Amino acid sequence: MQEREPRAVRQRQRTVKFLDTTLRDGEQTPGVSLTPEQKLQIAKQLDLLGVDVIEAGTAIISEGEQRAIRAIANAGLNAEICSFARLLRGDVDAAVGCGVETVNLVAPVSDAHIKKKLKIDRATLRAKTVEMAEYVKGQGLKVEISAEDASRSDLEFLKSFFSELAAAGVVDRLTFCDTVGVLYPERTKEIFSGLCLALSEFETPVSVHCHNDFGLATANSVAAVQAGAEVVHVTVNGLGERAGNASLEEVVVALERFYGVRTRIATQKLYETSRLVRRLTKMQVAPNKPLVGDNAFTHESGMHVHGTLADTTLYEPLDPAVVGRKRRFAFGKHTGKASVKTALKEQGIRADEKQISEILAKVKELGDKGKLVTDADFQAIVVDVLQIEREEKIKLVDLSVVSGKNVYPTASLRLAINGEEVVEAGVGVGPVDAAINALRKAMSGREMNDLRLEEYHVDAITGGTDALVNVAVKISRGDKTVTASGVSEDIVTASVRALINGVNRLYL
Amino acid sequence: MQEREPRAVRQRQRTVKFLDTTLRDGEQTPGVSLTPEQKLQIAKQLDLLGVDVIEAGTAIISEGEQRAIRAIANAGLNAEICSFARLLRGDVDAAVGCGVETVNLVAPVSDAHIKKKLKIDRATLRAKTVEMAEYVKGQGLKVEISAEDASRSDLEFLKSFFSELAAAGVVDRLTFCDTVGVLYPERTKEIFSGLCLALSEFETPVSVHCHNDFGLATANSVAAVQAGAEVVHVTVNGLGERAGNASLEEVVVALERFYGVRTRIATQKLYETSRLVRRLTKMQVAPNKPLVGDNAFTHESGMHVHGTLADTTLYEPLDPAVVGRKRRFAFGKHTGKASVKTALKEQGIRADEKQISEILAKVKELGDKGKLVTDADFQAIVVDVLQIEREEKIKLVDLSVVSGKNVYPTASLRLAINGEEVVEAGVGVGPVDAAINALRKAMSGREMNDLRLEEYHVDAITGGTDALVNVAVKISRGDKTVTASGVSEDIVTASVRALINGVNRLYL
Repeated sequence: MQEREPRAVRQRQRTVKFLDTTLRDGEQTPGVSLTPEQKLQIAKQLDLLGVDVIEAGTAIISEGEQRAIRAIANAGLNAEICSFARLLRGDVDAAVGCGVETVNLVAPVSDAHIKKKLKIDRATLRAKTVEMAEYVKGQGLKVEISAEDASRSDLEFLKSFFSELAAAGVVDRLTFCDTVGVLYPERTKEIFSGLCLALSEFETPVSVHCHNDFGLATANSVAAVQAGAEVVHVTVNGLGERAGNASLEEVVVALERFYGVRTRIATQKLYETSRLVRRLTKMQVAPNKPLVGDNAFTHESGMHVHGTLADTTLYEPLDPAVVGRKRRFAFGKHTGKASVKTALKEQGIRADEKQISEILAKVKELGDKGKLVTDADFQAIVVDVLQIEREEKIKLVDLSVVSGKNVYPTASLRLAINGEEVVEAGVGVGPVDAAINALRKAMSGREMNDLRLEEYHVDAITGGTDALVNVAVKISRGDKTVTASGVSEDIVTASVRALINGVNRLYL
Repeated sequence: MQEREPRAVRQRQRTVKFLDTTLRDGEQTPGVSLTPEQKLQIAKQLDLLGVDVIEAGTAIISEGEQRAIRAIANAGLNAEICSFARLLRGDVDAAVGCGVETVNLVAPVSDAHIKKKLKIDRATLRAKTVEMAEYVKGQGLKVEISAEDASRSDLEFLKSFFSELAAAGVVDRLTFCDTVGVLYPERTKEIFSGLCLALSEFETPVSVHCHNDFGLATANSVAAVQAGAEVVHVTVNGLGERAGNASLEEVVVALERFYGVRTRIATQKLYETSRLVRRLTKMQVAPNKPLVGDNAFTHESGMHVHGTLADTTLYEPLDPAVVGRKRRFAFGKHTGKASVKTALKEQGIRADEKQISEILAKVKELGDKGKLVTDADFQAIVVDVLQIEREEKIKLVDLSVVSGKNVYPTASLRLAINGEEVVEAGVGVGPVDAAINALRKAMSGREMNDLRLEEYHVDAITGGTDALVNVAVKISRGDKTVTASGVSEDIVTASVRALINGVNRLYL
């Protein structure tokens, strides 16, 4: 065995490692399923981010999973790659066959799991675990033991089980899993202090694996680190079974900021990692998700915008750039004068106090109706209040769309562009695509072909087929970008309106 | 002053009160705007839930806001109703005019906020606060003081400020606000222990108001209660500025379950409250949100489903009914045999081990492609593997839809129902609505008019106008309910497919 500093000294250095299990526990999120190509793409990003260990999947579950794990193991990443496996030779063989460096063996340790699920006793579990760990070791691989449901196990049994494994020299990491998320911070500290003390004569690091069933996964992970855990299991965006696992981004930032613990994570890549995982897993991230949600650095209320403009630290817990983000101001019923003034100044528009108050009143009026106020809405209000003579460059006169089964989606539209009538038709993969293609054709060649549709977004529609549909677009031209929206019961009309609103704003 | 038991005794009873600020801080979520009617609806639900204090809004911000607060104050609710106000007479007058019982005065207490935002000094702040508290008291109302940015204030100043207010008898609650979410549990305990000790001679309760910028709001709220806080500020679904406030549901359940603290909250109404707020605010709740997210009690992976079927406690942190929910099993690439057997048994279908393995393999194959496996997909696999002779009852032969601007959305379709050809047309508010109406007409009168479309959901569409659209429906007939989905680049075709898939499953 190589020489290592005693645990107490290692603790003082306080550098913590991360095992990211987005591709294993995270993928077990109901509704999430990634292709091998997507898993490889996420693994590469996790490696860039600086994750120490990537749990790439559970080799036994399918052919596709094995292809994915093999591709990740062979991608030449810096991170250690591991596969999850039950205490079964078939599981281990599948993992070994994928060329991973480590096998993470799950050993259920609560009596309920041992008796009711595995239908064995403690002694048999110990023997099976040692046997499988030796089997993995015998093939030259590293072994992690994940003690499943450890938070509901007999802790004296767990200590003796972990000590036996460490003493036998067949494990490289010992993980305490709060499988059903029933830990709370005080209990976590108590458990980890006792566990790390019991293992103090061994050099095997202890890991913590938390679930977020009561919203305490971040606090529990941090508590475990304070009490001696050296590795933390996390997932991007907190994906995972039920309420998910501890969130990578939250644990990293909390440890670094509040507890002076160092990590190898490049925090400025946290946001792009979150976006990639959001896009590929199609799992919504709540707007109010800490650090990575759409609103985490957005200010709307007058008091907050006013304060933030005076000094960004007044209403921001940390510089958004730390996690690779930018701050954003939004309009709505809580908007104050400061937001209006800032927006007008940015556009080089002058207004007196009375006009500013009138603009503000109209923004609030729109907000009172329960509407989101977009850049285009704000612009329309400004034009109205300041009586700016700005004819809308483009007006939609008629739109007609045909689609269906055994019908080629086709759209025709009649626009007035600077008063000139333009008629154009287009086809597409569906009615919205056809209409947008027709619109693009109508605009190109009219000095408007440098437009880029940066984002197209339709809010989830829930309720009935007659619900109002809100389409939001972000379009840009050169270095100018605007957001605009269109609302209608008809998704096609809403899409065309959103784009025309945006274009008119760009050409004001 | 009325006689109250000393703080130490009150603490031993450990009953905590909740101030819900969903309608004030929660509504400040960028993009959220509620009509007065919607605010009243939410307030009534919060009252049923057993919230002690409802912060109904900030009266000064708009006419609509005042109508909303007035309606809530006059609704005869059990809860105490309060309005937020700055230290300005206009703010207080607007609040008083709405007929609230309490005014929550926000007093910024960090030097940064006092100097840079208010541009005054500490002494002026103290004087203004006492003056405004007396002004409110003079009109017979209760006063709460919310010490803004308290977590970055000079704590000695804060203690002296709070003590002065308590000694003057002009306050009914003193709130410590972690305005930018920079507390962590150990620090929270340290602060609240000191604060409650400093205020031990007074009977004024101390409240805690946490934000979730680092994912620690639940842990911090709980830590404050352990150290003496008697009231907790929360929002439903954790809505609020940036990453939001502490979540009502998480704090209530954590306190009751882990810390033996009693509350007046009817926890079995937590889920319906969350759903109402989700629907009215249109703010997505992440599937992995603790307790109220779609996946919080859903199991997909084979190991978890197998375990849960053996004993529900193996993979569940609490009985879903505690928060008014039910458990759900989902199919996907992590599905195991236990899920397949359970589903077949429920439908009274017999299959041998070989057939079950084959069904499982096909479910995993679909999952490997990154697809969500719905009930209808599962059914199609079962029919295929067991070679059940089941002609689909309904087949879509042709579909044709016309919509646009100055076009009345119209759809016609040709179906084969039990081999008989049916042609029908319908109109609607948009192309999807027209197509679904045509489909309904085609089915009614054919012993299929007892169908109910329970849910219609389109996932958010992000990317381009040519993105694949996933439409999910839940339809029922009598007491049988099925989920089905349809995918296409054309939202109209996807919607019709989803409904037909579901109907075929219902009539199998």
